Amino acid sequence: MRWEQLGEQNCSVARSLSVFGDRWTLLILRDSFLGIKRFDDFMDDLKLSRTILTDRLNKLVEHDVLIKVPYQTKPTRYDYKLTEKGRALHPVILAIVQWGDTFYAEDGEPPVLRTHKKCGHDFQAIVVCSECSEPIKPQDVTVRVNRNSPAYKRNALQKA
Amino acid sequence: MRWEQLGEQNCSVARSLSVFGDRWTLLILRDSFLGIKRFDDFMDDLKLSRTILTDRLNKLVEHDVLIKVPYQTKPTRYDYKLTEKGRALHPVILAIVQWGDTFYAEDGEPPVLRTHKKCGHDFQAIVVCSECSEPIKPQDVTVRVNRNSPAYKRNALQKA
Repeated sequence: MRWEQLGEQNCSVARSLSVFGDRWTLLILRDSFLGIKRFDDFMDDLKLSRTILTDRLNKLVEHDVLIKVPYQTKPTRYDYKLTEKGRALHPVILAIVQWGDTFYAEDGEPPVLRTHKKCGHDFQAIVVCSECSEPIKPQDVTVRVNRNSPAYKRNALQKA
Repeated sequence: MRWEQLGEQNCSVARSLSVFGDRWTLLILRDSFLGIKRFDDFMDDLKLSRTILTDRLNKLVEHDVLIKVPYQTKPTRYDYKLTEKGRALHPVILAIVQWGDTFYAEDGEPPVLRTHKKCGHDFQAIVVCSECSEPIKPQDVTVRVNRNSPAYKRNALQKA
């Protein structure tokens, strides 16, 4: 399977990864959630080439994860802001942070601390079940094909 | 910054992504959580080259995310099983699934449904605060450097 076909795979992970599944893109998103909006600020923070940054930002705009908003004219310059679809990636970034903090924090002290303003405490990100609110463990999950999904129906038709 | 230096960056996202931040690796992990363990089964599912699969599996073993367990001798063949550190990536995969299901499910029907055996319901994965159990929104998070972290202390010493 080629990279470009990933998005066609009948799987939410594959589709998602065809949008943001490379390191630079995920680091750009991390920076977006830290409040970085401008091309030069991404450049300064990530120390990557203009070409790669332009490519990754354009792709995120094309997929409606970031939106370009002009902040000056002559020449026109843009802020790159998270859209609603972009902000919905926050749990992905938090889950990645959580894993890194758990396994790579020297002396158990993560480099960065996050406070939840709602309750005022430094927090860890926990993934819970929408139905019972309990943390989800891998062994507690079973998976099945959704027979109501258009992809399943197309597949069934082809085989019939 | 070069790829290899990502792991040295003083950031849990960058460190994490230096371990699993490419699409194939994340798809291998998705498969691992679906119960796939054998080289040929990863090959069949992902349709990638033997070279790339070998490379990615070896890297995951090297970083203690997967462990090789022999299941036959002459010739020796291995299962690739998730370690504890690997199983701790479940929230990352669930968060990616959730985003894909939200924005890419045709007719609102995701291709795959997940049941939480503990409560018996199909679920969505929600990221909540460890302290108050409320869902975490991007605008409710503030971030600060951890002055107790060894990385911060080294940095402060260098600047002194």
